[in-house]
Amino acid sequence: MAKLTKRSEDYSKWYNELVINADMAENSGVRGCMVIKPYGYAIWEKMQAELDRMFKETGHVNAYFPLFIPKSYFSKEADHVEGFAKECAVVTHYRLKNSADGKGIEVDETARLEEELIVRPTSETIIWDTYRKWVQSYRDLPILVNQWANVVRWEMRTRLFLRTAEFLWQEGHTAHATEVEAVKEAEQMLKVYAEFVENFMAIPVLQGTKSPNECFAGALETYCIEALMQDGKALQAGTSHFLGQNFAKTFDVKYLSKEGKQEHVWATSWGVSTRLMGALVMTHSDDNGLVLPPNLAPFQVVIIPIYKGEEHLGQISEVAEQLMTELRSMGISVKFDDRDTHKPGWKFNEYELKGVPVRLALGPRDLENGTVEVARRDTLEKESLQRVDIGQKIKNLLEQIQSNLYNKAATFREENTHVADSWDEFVEILDNKGGFISAHWDGTPETEEEIKNKTKATIRCIPLDQKVEEGKCVYSGKASKGRVIFAKAY
Amino acid sequence: MAKLTKRSEDYSKWYNELVINADMAENSGVRGCMVIKPYGYAIWEKMQAELDRMFKETGHVNAYFPLFIPKSYFSKEADHVEGFAKECAVVTHYRLKNSADGKGIEVDETARLEEELIVRPTSETIIWDTYRKWVQSYRDLPILVNQWANVVRWEMRTRLFLRTAEFLWQEGHTAHATEVEAVKEAEQMLKVYAEFVENFMAIPVLQGTKSPNECFAGALETYCIEALMQDGKALQAGTSHFLGQNFAKTFDVKYLSKEGKQEHVWATSWGVSTRLMGALVMTHSDDNGLVLPPNLAPFQVVIIPIYKGEEHLGQISEVAEQLMTELRSMGISVKFDDRDTHKPGWKFNEYELKGVPVRLALGPRDLENGTVEVARRDTLEKESLQRVDIGQKIKNLLEQIQSNLYNKAATFREENTHVADSWDEFVEILDNKGGFISAHWDGTPETEEEIKNKTKATIRCIPLDQKVEEGKCVYSGKASKGRVIFAKAY
Repeated sequence: MAKLTKRSEDYSKWYNELVINADMAENSGVRGCMVIKPYGYAIWEKMQAELDRMFKETGHVNAYFPLFIPKSYFSKEADHVEGFAKECAVVTHYRLKNSADGKGIEVDETARLEEELIVRPTSETIIWDTYRKWVQSYRDLPILVNQWANVVRWEMRTRLFLRTAEFLWQEGHTAHATEVEAVKEAEQMLKVYAEFVENFMAIPVLQGTKSPNECFAGALETYCIEALMQDGKALQAGTSHFLGQNFAKTFDVKYLSKEGKQEHVWATSWGVSTRLMGALVMTHSDDNGLVLPPNLAPFQVVIIPIYKGEEHLGQISEVAEQLMTELRSMGISVKFDDRDTHKPGWKFNEYELKGVPVRLALGPRDLENGTVEVARRDTLEKESLQRVDIGQKIKNLLEQIQSNLYNKAATFREENTHVADSWDEFVEILDNKGGFISAHWDGTPETEEEIKNKTKATIRCIPLDQKVEEGKCVYSGKASKGRVIFAKAY
Repeated sequence: MAKLTKRSEDYSKWYNELVINADMAENSGVRGCMVIKPYGYAIWEKMQAELDRMFKETGHVNAYFPLFIPKSYFSKEADHVEGFAKECAVVTHYRLKNSADGKGIEVDETARLEEELIVRPTSETIIWDTYRKWVQSYRDLPILVNQWANVVRWEMRTRLFLRTAEFLWQEGHTAHATEVEAVKEAEQMLKVYAEFVENFMAIPVLQGTKSPNECFAGALETYCIEALMQDGKALQAGTSHFLGQNFAKTFDVKYLSKEGKQEHVWATSWGVSTRLMGALVMTHSDDNGLVLPPNLAPFQVVIIPIYKGEEHLGQISEVAEQLMTELRSMGISVKFDDRDTHKPGWKFNEYELKGVPVRLALGPRDLENGTVEVARRDTLEKESLQRVDIGQKIKNLLEQIQSNLYNKAATFREENTHVADSWDEFVEILDNKGGFISAHWDGTPETEEEIKNKTKATIRCIPLDQKVEEGKCVYSGKASKGRVIFAKAY
């Protein structure tokens, strides 16, 4: 196996090689669409399971809405169509036929759709067209629905997980009787995302709202969580939108209130996607490969036998079986790799590349001494441990690794969050250090736009815990009442 | 709530009304595409969870492949393109633009794809194009991959769950070193499906192989499970295909064998879809609504309080809480419907319509007597039970309901499976009774085709347990060596 490009040499190349070599995903024969390979998909399944549990715990249910959206639906909500990227896959025909030369197939031009269908880039329009039928009275509210689905946005420059034409995501779409309730829901879901990303993925995030420039098309407020990658660029890890009554008005979704009045419904939508896989890779991994938090690892422990002959392997296997039984009884997932087609050294590299949190090696000496060699992926430290009570020891170790990864990332973020009080400082930090920049902003879209044009940095968020602080905009010098977070972003 | 059309009046109308009124699914604004509503989706999730567990237990892993397939991929496998329906959604453009009148959006004609993309109707081609990169040596085999996905087939006449343009399914695609292993896999997955449909969905199925006419395009053998609906029509509930080396040859997927020879890989594919939801409805439900097997019910027990004032409700709620705790501790899912917006009678009808297996009613008398009224959905029987040990009693009852549903369906199938030994008999049974017909067939596609044209009946399967029995074809009179199963089908 060839070595990965080092992060310090070419971060982007390192990322791409890592995703491919660790068997997470690869490009397909379809431009911009990836294949998520079993190892990558197993990580996504773990994310899905935990998020789904959290959604259900907060009262949500799942449903499924059509992949296709009639073109006219998009025209209905003015801000949505204006603000939303128009790079969409468009279905125009519904039949193929044999080619005249008999050698292939071609599109049957007689089977043209009356109205073109758009492959959903997001589902607000089709869902609100449906909610109209579901809502009559206040008794029908709230609607707390989530959907796990694939969506398509025809990106011109794509990168595995980070930006692909097709990606997998969940999109929650809720309907409420009051504004207060809808805002509360949008905020609640932001908290759910933050909790998931921090506790489960071990990635610290900033919570905030978007500036108008970065707000979702059709939303009154976009809440977001922002993470910092190892190359000093930010990555938006999830968004939750308060949509006001925009979609309800566009799609005529009203309810009869307790007081007998017809009122428009209030809306939210919120989503995270397979992009989180990219955040996972870019936050924790190193030059040797993937580093997985134990909560997300397809298997948390791998056992590798070190043996000479068949007889040896038999003895080691016996001990390995005991270890597996003990570990599994404690809820730890474990794989025993006793393949005779690969050498132990090859296996060590392979599981390091794949980010398995803990590697156990069992050799002849260990059998004699009642020990096992324990290596942790995050620090690459090894030690020999007595096998007595090994289950509890490994359980503790996994917890340590999970929190170590979080702490490491939090320290990195702290070290890479800078305060800029002048334009020179701002530019200097961006050029030489990267990371998050905390700076005053005059609150206008024009200033944000100019900063973006000059430096590629955007406002990642207005922190929820923003302090009131009189200051001057780092760019325009105009008055500002608090700092916002700038960064270059994925 | 209006009463459902009776099955005896109009089975098809009954089905449609039931699916809609029980909140399982509804038609969307997109022709042929349905919205799966939360109650219906919760049932599908239970199916998914159990199937996924069974797939993983048999060594399979999940992955995800692109939604789009380049047109040229379809032309590659001759049988596949010839046999497969060409009603597909075709993506021709990748961008929208604002209309000249500024009022809407239109397709940007300058953004035409060089090669059209087909929305996957099934994924053999894109997956085998990928497997070429995954397989070099015998060490890379077998590949045991499953995908949960949406697929699109542009059906002209659609029906909720049974036949929709877009539907959800899983498709397993495996690659093997030997023919024996691939056939074994195809047979194993048929067993998995049969076990799932019989034990979990309480639907008895025939297991068999398809006649060449009904075989999957590109397969050497199609294994299937066939169920019988209450109107005497058959429904194919799942298929498992042995694909030979067809796709491997087309997509050039070879491996280096242990003996150092380049060999083509052997393939299977297998799938079940949201069509199973239709089978579920049509097998068990009655004129009052849905009847759900306890294994698939989103909640197995509903508790309805019967009370006059707030104080009453308080007392009943207390007992209900105790019941819920006891039931949940036994792994039973339960809902307490204490809404004051609906009367008990309304609720009784609602949960009957939705097929909740067991309904518990708690009134003032029950509080005094330590009893609870227990009603089972399958037989509509009610009885008053002492609340002592109620958890165990309900657990037993749920098991009884699960097996009663299976037995009822098995009896129905037995009563509606007929032997036909002459053409007159065959036609008479089809016209007057429907159901499965066991008859001799001469083994030719021509005869099957003629029978289909004359009666709409097709060969549902050649049973795996077919007995060798000399006979004469029911249509042609030619020699036959065993009976096959005919029926009209969904």
